[in-house]
Amino acid sequence: MKTYESVPFFNVDIDMGFWQKRQELNRSMTIPAVLRQFTDTGRFAALRCDWREGQPNKPHIFYDSDVAKWIESVAYALEKQSLPDMQAAAQAAIDDIIAHQCSDGYINSYFTGVEPSMRWRHRWAHELYCAGHYMEASVAWHHATGQDDFLQAMCRYADYIDRVFRVEHSAAFGTPGHEEIELALVRLYHETGEERYLNLSRYFIEQRGRDPLDASAEGSERNLMYNQSHLPAREQSEAVGHSVRACYFYSGMADIARECRDEGLKAACERLFDSITQKRMYVTGGIGSTSYGEAFTVDYDLPNEIAYTETCAAIALCCFAQRMLLISPQRKYADVVERALYNGFLSGVSLDGRKFFYTNPLEITLAHHFPNPTYKDREWLPQTQRVEVFSCSCCPPNVTRMIASVGNYIYTRDADTVYMHQYMGHTAHLDGGEICVRTAYPADGNVRIVARGLEGRTLALRIPAWCGSFSLDRPYVLRDGYAYVRLEAETRLRLTLDMPLYLVQANVRASDAAGKAALMRGPIVYCVEGVDQDAPLCGVSLRAPLKAEVTGAAEFGMPAITADGYRQAEPADDALYRPLLERPHAQSLRFIPYYAFANRGESDMRVWLPLQWDE
Amino acid sequence: MKTYESVPFFNVDIDMGFWQKRQELNRSMTIPAVLRQFTDTGRFAALRCDWREGQPNKPHIFYDSDVAKWIESVAYALEKQSLPDMQAAAQAAIDDIIAHQCSDGYINSYFTGVEPSMRWRHRWAHELYCAGHYMEASVAWHHATGQDDFLQAMCRYADYIDRVFRVEHSAAFGTPGHEEIELALVRLYHETGEERYLNLSRYFIEQRGRDPLDASAEGSERNLMYNQSHLPAREQSEAVGHSVRACYFYSGMADIARECRDEGLKAACERLFDSITQKRMYVTGGIGSTSYGEAFTVDYDLPNEIAYTETCAAIALCCFAQRMLLISPQRKYADVVERALYNGFLSGVSLDGRKFFYTNPLEITLAHHFPNPTYKDREWLPQTQRVEVFSCSCCPPNVTRMIASVGNYIYTRDADTVYMHQYMGHTAHLDGGEICVRTAYPADGNVRIVARGLEGRTLALRIPAWCGSFSLDRPYVLRDGYAYVRLEAETRLRLTLDMPLYLVQANVRASDAAGKAALMRGPIVYCVEGVDQDAPLCGVSLRAPLKAEVTGAAEFGMPAITADGYRQAEPADDALYRPLLERPHAQSLRFIPYYAFANRGESDMRVWLPLQWDE
Repeated sequence: MKTYESVPFFNVDIDMGFWQKRQELNRSMTIPAVLRQFTDTGRFAALRCDWREGQPNKPHIFYDSDVAKWIESVAYALEKQSLPDMQAAAQAAIDDIIAHQCSDGYINSYFTGVEPSMRWRHRWAHELYCAGHYMEASVAWHHATGQDDFLQAMCRYADYIDRVFRVEHSAAFGTPGHEEIELALVRLYHETGEERYLNLSRYFIEQRGRDPLDASAEGSERNLMYNQSHLPAREQSEAVGHSVRACYFYSGMADIARECRDEGLKAACERLFDSITQKRMYVTGGIGSTSYGEAFTVDYDLPNEIAYTETCAAIALCCFAQRMLLISPQRKYADVVERALYNGFLSGVSLDGRKFFYTNPLEITLAHHFPNPTYKDREWLPQTQRVEVFSCSCCPPNVTRMIASVGNYIYTRDADTVYMHQYMGHTAHLDGGEICVRTAYPADGNVRIVARGLEGRTLALRIPAWCGSFSLDRPYVLRDGYAYVRLEAETRLRLTLDMPLYLVQANVRASDAAGKAALMRGPIVYCVEGVDQDAPLCGVSLRAPLKAEVTGAAEFGMPAITADGYRQAEPADDALYRPLLERPHAQSLRFIPYYAFANRGESDMRVWLPLQWDE
Repeated sequence: MKTYESVPFFNVDIDMGFWQKRQELNRSMTIPAVLRQFTDTGRFAALRCDWREGQPNKPHIFYDSDVAKWIESVAYALEKQSLPDMQAAAQAAIDDIIAHQCSDGYINSYFTGVEPSMRWRHRWAHELYCAGHYMEASVAWHHATGQDDFLQAMCRYADYIDRVFRVEHSAAFGTPGHEEIELALVRLYHETGEERYLNLSRYFIEQRGRDPLDASAEGSERNLMYNQSHLPAREQSEAVGHSVRACYFYSGMADIARECRDEGLKAACERLFDSITQKRMYVTGGIGSTSYGEAFTVDYDLPNEIAYTETCAAIALCCFAQRMLLISPQRKYADVVERALYNGFLSGVSLDGRKFFYTNPLEITLAHHFPNPTYKDREWLPQTQRVEVFSCSCCPPNVTRMIASVGNYIYTRDADTVYMHQYMGHTAHLDGGEICVRTAYPADGNVRIVARGLEGRTLALRIPAWCGSFSLDRPYVLRDGYAYVRLEAETRLRLTLDMPLYLVQANVRASDAAGKAALMRGPIVYCVEGVDQDAPLCGVSLRAPLKAEVTGAAEFGMPAITADGYRQAEPADDALYRPLLERPHAQSLRFIPYYAFANRGESDMRVWLPLQWDE
């Protein structure tokens, strides 16, 4: 089994364009905003393990993971430039974490500070999930700062977890209730070279779906499916249950498949990836169709208005897809990273970098968002505006670490070939040479590449599936969605990806999108917002074939688009029902990037629009 | 204030056509089917008040009302022909009811047999609601059989209720938690001439929304709105809360407005009627948009798939609208009766007369009806198939009494003018004369009328609002939707209502129907069912302008219709998303009457369809 290497983001300087702006905003605005919110809500204070009944801000079982992802974000940002305030706050948190490590190695502010007798008693209690995020943070901190006390503390914790779970089986459950530690242990193994961590990860992966303690802890097939414990990993074929758990788990499976050259696990990962992306993924790359269990449901069930599509789930899908590229460099994986990254992930944070969506619906009809005046509230509907913090605030620090390390998604490679999967303006250093990319992508499809000092190697450039035609001003071989170019001592390339506006249709079995279309440009899914139209969205349709043009400045980091459409003719009378006599009226529809929705107050919104076909 | 009289159904013999068949099915199949189900579930046994803990079929607080409506149905059927088995079963039930009347007059099998200490303790306990249905049944039984023991028992009960509620205020609440007794007391007053019953009804109407005991029993504004106790009756303007309760209450208000010549109550009724029919009513005449509280929600909130639209609510709306005709003979009231009767009401019973819908959705997508494989069930969705009985089985005996007495809806009158609001084949006897109507309506719009012995009177024929043109072969004056014809000793009329196929659109503010259309023919709402099409309904659209024809025999009591439409082009690949390249393909769509949906197994269904406008 052939495997590939990553080119880590700290060897990739994102020094221009779309993502430079996002990273700058992330550093200057979002990371400090999350610090403020987490401070105000007691998440940092909780690390001191001295909360007592009656005090405000009772710690929660997943607070450690929130802090961990924030520290990880700071570490990533520090790779690029110094941030003294953020670093000091992270250091203080790390000091608290280390100070309250138990003598046996255990680290968990909730169970140490609030319920010490309940350690390892409940599978749902997120202890191993928090441990995984601490491990990831410690690896990042070690790399960014060179300090190794946090990393050492986490190694001691990992050793202890290894003893409790793999050797002694002394916990009340056998494998994590919320996966994450599996992929974290592989990172810890890479940072330390300690094979015990790789083996523990593999143990958790293999033990899942087989452990009798887990079966009795969960009690039902449904609960086992909820966290992917219903079958052994290598027998799984359908993406089920909590979608973040699922993709963290599949990421761990892909890691182990790669590290252990495990064809069986690799095949399972391929089946699960196809299950998600061919049957259970929104056009935005969002996943998780229902609020009940934040979960996958059944094939083709992709309701727009009650979509759950958690921001963390889009991130987790990127994690999974990128790891698939390390065992199988197929375009489809990079296409999915791109889809999720620019749409269902990026919608999770406001344009000003201060507010977050936990859920990312594909349709908002404000008229449906009323408190039921009688009896009980209406069915669950997603929030229509981003907020600064959630009680379960996993998404904000996941956004910050994702943006700070987004350079991870550009490349994979082997000794001969460097695959460029994503187009971001950057300068990468590898093998003593460098690759420099200048582009406004995805605002346009022009990509200038200069590679120096990599002669004899091959650069493979992804031609996205959405791209109908492209040009490249150097000889190339096109194979399986990649254009292969032989590099010389200095190679200057100009890749032009045609980026027309186009409509997308869904498989007719996806009942909530059937008969409709979504407007895209390159990888960007567009949407209409009520605030931009002078007709109610519920009565509009989009002209097909598409007649549209790019209009206005790139006010959302991307041009707006105006397309021909129609609105329901509305007679002056105010009747509830009336004979349909009048044709729909022409109506220009203004589209903005989906990721930019809900930045201008509450508004109706649609990704999928009904069509009116003209001659 | 001018008022009008009804022409009761027992003076109207429905002797041909659409409703004769329905009444025959009701007598031969539905009334016996309900008896069987109610016997099997212990509803009749409960009347003996001897259920003991540990026995099966624990009585329920609303069982009396189920039995009462069934007895009422039998009484109505007996007006037309003898039904010895049904009569004997009803008589046995009545004997049990009378035998277990308490010495003070109280009648309630649940509180007498199961929880005697809880009499009049809980406003939600349906005692006055059950009493009202018993009163209606006793009036019907008295008229049909001439026996007066049941009526006398109910008069004693009414006297006792009058004392408890109006005189002594000794119950834990002040007015009914579920309205119904208000209109029933007016019927008892009409049957007995005893004004105490009229006054008690008026008292309940006026006291509602003012009673401090009710306010503390309900505890919150929401709960008060749930059963229309949030404001005094004459101050109400918006239809709120549980939709069956609401329309029973408004019916009682209309009764009192008429009996007491009360302009204030009449004005409130007019406002409430407009609130329902201009803002909160489905095109089928169904009402109640949400399962939460079986209730009205807010203006224009009319979701199709999660519509509640209880069968009883359509009946209650007919009750209310018909009573409005007795204080204001306006076409809009009769139009609403017709809309609800032929659509949202009639869908409540299967074509074979044996099964019932409690809820009547306007859209079914079977793919949405899956048990969520993880964690919890999905949002509430209505049942997709009729069943024989419900645990809360209010609808089946409401259907049987409605069909058996549907002749009530044909006429209202004063001394000079007889208004014919509904067109059913029948012979009516009034003022020593008769009116005979021969018609296949609503299968077609041809109505032949012969009036004899009514010379000097005026016959006013409703021209439905849906009817664009009509012809009448006698001189007439058209005023406010009625054609007025002067009657001679014998008058033969031929009224022809044009009944073309037409599309209806909804007000654009009704977001779930906006941009779509429903197909109608005369008063009949049509729908498409998946079982009739060779394309998935979720991807079809209807051609506009409508190009359709009546096809096939009247297999559902009404012709089927075939209309031009389109289906989403579906490439051979099985991709989840793909560029939209192909125009939709032509697709004939077969429409059947909405009331006939779900009679051929589970199927997708749509009333509202997206449109594709052609040149």
